Amino acid sequence: MTSWRVRLQRSLFSAETTSARWVDLLILVMTLASILTVMLASVDDLRQRYEPVFVVLEWMFTAFFTIDYALRLVTAPMPTRYAFSFFGLVDAIAVLPAYLSLTLPGLESLLVLRALQLLRVFRLLKLIRFVQEADQLWQSLSASASKITVFLTGVFVLQLVIASFMYLIEGPSHGFDSIPHSLYWTIVTMTTVGYGDLTPQTATGKVLASIIMLIGYGIIAVPTGIVTSDLTRRRSSQSEECQTCGHREIPEGAKYCPACGVSLAGRSS
Amino acid sequence: MTSWRVRLQRSLFSAETTSARWVDLLILVMTLASILTVMLASVDDLRQRYEPVFVVLEWMFTAFFTIDYALRLVTAPMPTRYAFSFFGLVDAIAVLPAYLSLTLPGLESLLVLRALQLLRVFRLLKLIRFVQEADQLWQSLSASASKITVFLTGVFVLQLVIASFMYLIEGPSHGFDSIPHSLYWTIVTMTTVGYGDLTPQTATGKVLASIIMLIGYGIIAVPTGIVTSDLTRRRSSQSEECQTCGHREIPEGAKYCPACGVSLAGRSS
Amino acid sequence: MTSWRVRLQRSLFSAETTSARWVDLLILVMTLASILTVMLASVDDLRQRYEPVFVVLEWMFTAFFTIDYALRLVTAPMPTRYAFSFFGLVDAIAVLPAYLSLTLPGLESLLVLRALQLLRVFRLLKLIRFVQEADQLWQSLSASASKITVFLTGVFVLQLVIASFMYLIEGPSHGFDSIPHSLYWTIVTMTTVGYGDLTPQTATGKVLASIIMLIGYGIIAVPTGIVTSDLTRRRSSQSEECQTCGHREIPEGAKYCPACGVSLAGRSS
Amino acid sequence: MTSWRVRLQRSLFSAETTSARWVDLLILVMTLASILTVMLASVDDLRQRYEPVFVVLEWMFTAFFTIDYALRLVTAPMPTRYAFSFFGLVDAIAVLPAYLSLTLPGLESLLVLRALQLLRVFRLLKLIRFVQEADQLWQSLSASASKITVFLTGVFVLQLVIASFMYLIEGPSHGFDSIPHSLYWTIVTMTTVGYGDLTPQTATGKVLASIIMLIGYGIIAVPTGIVTSDLTRRRSSQSEECQTCGHREIPEGAKYCPACGVSLAGRSS
Repeated sequence: MTSWRVRLQRSLFSAETTSARWVDLLILVMTLASILTVMLASVDDLRQRYEPVFVVLEWMFTAFFTIDYALRLVTAPMPTRYAFSFFGLVDAIAVLPAYLSLTLPGLESLLVLRALQLLRVFRLLKLIRFVQEADQLWQSLSASASKITVFLTGVFVLQLVIASFMYLIEGPSHGFDSIPHSLYWTIVTMTTVGYGDLTPQTATGKVLASIIMLIGYGIIAVPTGIVTSDLTRRRSSQSEECQTCGHREIPEGAKYCPACGVSLAGRSS
Repeated sequence: MTSWRVRLQRSLFSAETTSARWVDLLILVMTLASILTVMLASVDDLRQRYEPVFVVLEWMFTAFFTIDYALRLVTAPMPTRYAFSFFGLVDAIAVLPAYLSLTLPGLESLLVLRALQLLRVFRLLKLIRFVQEADQLWQSLSASASKITVFLTGVFVLQLVIASFMYLIEGPSHGFDSIPHSLYWTIVTMTTVGYGDLTPQTATGKVLASIIMLIGYGIIAVPTGIVTSDLTRRRSSQSEECQTCGHREIPEGAKYCPACGVSLAGRSS
Repeated sequence: MTSWRVRLQRSLFSAETTSARWVDLLILVMTLASILTVMLASVDDLRQRYEPVFVVLEWMFTAFFTIDYALRLVTAPMPTRYAFSFFGLVDAIAVLPAYLSLTLPGLESLLVLRALQLLRVFRLLKLIRFVQEADQLWQSLSASASKITVFLTGVFVLQLVIASFMYLIEGPSHGFDSIPHSLYWTIVTMTTVGYGDLTPQTATGKVLASIIMLIGYGIIAVPTGIVTSDLTRRRSSQSEECQTCGHREIPEGAKYCPACGVSLAGRSS
Repeated sequence: MTSWRVRLQRSLFSAETTSARWVDLLILVMTLASILTVMLASVDDLRQRYEPVFVVLEWMFTAFFTIDYALRLVTAPMPTRYAFSFFGLVDAIAVLPAYLSLTLPGLESLLVLRALQLLRVFRLLKLIRFVQEADQLWQSLSASASKITVFLTGVFVLQLVIASFMYLIEGPSHGFDSIPHSLYWTIVTMTTVGYGDLTPQTATGKVLASIIMLIGYGIIAVPTGIVTSDLTRRRSSQSEECQTCGHREIPEGAKYCPACGVSLAGRSS
């Protein structure tokens, strides 16, 4: 009995055993199929014609994910800790909307939140190099976060100021009927999305809009520069570990470990 | 009496005391609340229903910022210098539109200029690393400014030439009714905003437009390259030289020079 | 007889002989002319007026490419291997649609697939530096592929989640009539294309849309950063080490090591 | 007489004398005023009201630029060489449309080509650092040109293939009425401009469009990466000249000149 629980636990939680990888693969396939079902069921034509099929499929997937969730809760060494871990929450989100939709109709489309389970693809590929790549990307983004926050705060203040000027210049008669709406236009323009559902009509408005576009076009460079320079720095110092102290960020071409000073001469390149 | 002025002055101007940080935080919160009020008041539906509330709130915020400004003017060691400093002007701009709107109705929305006070958030975070980041970003942008000016001048001349050709090709019958209007279209297109309020109708116009888009898509690389290469260079030369062997690229936090292995313990950080 | 086959083979397959380069140039010109014909033939006005001319021209081109393909099949040392090589498939695609259109009318426009033969331009320029450049670009893109895959998977999951929320918020009455349609809108917005054929109408939808735009604007930095940092690293490590002192960053074309001053004359380039 | 010609020549052609800089500044101001006149004259309302003013102003500017051009032709040491130099052609273009418009009405708007004279701003700033910056940018762009050509050829072939598929999928009934028109749509979409004057209507078309957008969003990274990595490399090797051989690209931290091997120890940093 215990051995059965242990074996199940290994399949569900570790990523090193073959059975665990099959489980992950199965969940991924079921997730994809489930998302496809939810998406197709939202298309009016299809729903009207195949409604019973969709209902059956959706409850089948819900049953599958409920069993998966229950098994994980039962076999987890620390159920509460699992329940509040990232994948624990993702697994809960995968089944919750189905049960909620029984009382609150219309929530079925939230079943698409099962998409979050697709992130499991990274776990499936854990043993390969993908996790390392994701780690490196994540480190770069975290390291750049404070710089990007500073940048975005400045940009947002600028957008607020521009939005209020555009509201004064164009006014409600040209569609800029409130400052929040004007701010929406400013964001649409500055990010170069440019829907065209709201466009400046007056000459002054067009001049101001042109200036905003040029600014938006120019400052797109800034977050790119921040992330790129960090990635570049990180790469150039991403070689093997120091065998003496385990320090990781050894610059290319270094002859001595910058953390413990031991000679690296003998290492194989 | 003097001690009271000194203490108040410290709270309002320095950023190192605890009380100063509370004052900054209070102003930030009031700024956010005030901006929200101005924005909501600009929405037609809400203004008609809650007009009295908005009027009261706006004058309350104006009173608060007026008192803040007055206290700063009184306690500043050099009032005129404060009045013309960056934050002095920002503080004035925060209250001016309210008083101007008494004589010139319609200027209330300029109260959103209070958003500039949000830049105070950087002062609030002064003691942490954000200011250093902002400094570095600012240095990179300043250093890149002359290159970007050269680039933008060239781009603007190109846009003027293209705009006049489009005006000749498309003409007033397709909405390109003047060169300034045609220039507006060129900027909308080249920055990849693309509203669609003005689009080429003739075959020749579409060919020329396609060329412009490809150019715009290609040269977006240039400002990015300028800023990125500067940020990268700045990062790699941020660390000082090894005083023993003169090696320059010492990674952040290194204790030993990666080129000669000497201890860097004694250096001043 | 054999010598004739060998000479023909050399002209068709190798890129080093002068005749081979003339053959490649001829095919390029014919390809361009053929694509132009297909494109113009698709314009309604022109087709109605010059239909016979287009038909004759298209079959002329088809005859030319058929002969070219037949000759290559005949003279290739290993016909099957050629038939399934990249350029073998491209050559087959260049003639197939013409014959298929005899039975399935409407496929004529697939003749534009002849455009793939334009890639032959790289072979034409083989002896010059272009292939090396393409190689380097390709290496950088391959090396970045796993990082970009991780990034795009994350982005796609995010887009699915956002799309389903937008479907719930806006609903069919505002044009968001199914999750796939809502996903299309999310992609149009996040990539900053912004057609404007589908725009958020509700206040909540506009707020969510603004957030998506800012995210899309921000994360455009990530693939750029990945490719750039790889290209930068690749460039800086392109030069070999100094054999005397082991210094690595030797600039292109250097005659003396910048670190130890030893002559690099004897090294093989 | 000769001395008068020599002095005039110096003012018009060299950039080092004070009078030459005043001449350049005068031409810049006249160019800006002239462009503004042409632009305003193209606005219907203004032209109808102030037509005589615009006519007088335009001929005044034309007279000014004609005299300038004539003086340059007369005083140039080698008139033909000047006439075919870059600024010689720009000066000719500045006056030609005015005379051509006498016989071919409607060409007045080509007077905006005078904008090319704005490039003279770089000459005005010659003695300062701007020319060096422009040089560096130009070098980076030239060095990147072959890589970007390879990239754009590949992208264009891809766009042709996609355009013909979209033409087949959407067809004339949804506005994709010819392959050139479909290619125009592809370029509008892939460069993320997204006018919205032509959008996919069928489900298949929307799926294909989404894929194109994601590709366009992803590969915007490539030209950026090319330019950035070149600028970064160029910067890190942009220090002072070698005083012995005059070699310019000395990498940061070099102890010996990579071109002549001389020790750089004594140089001031």
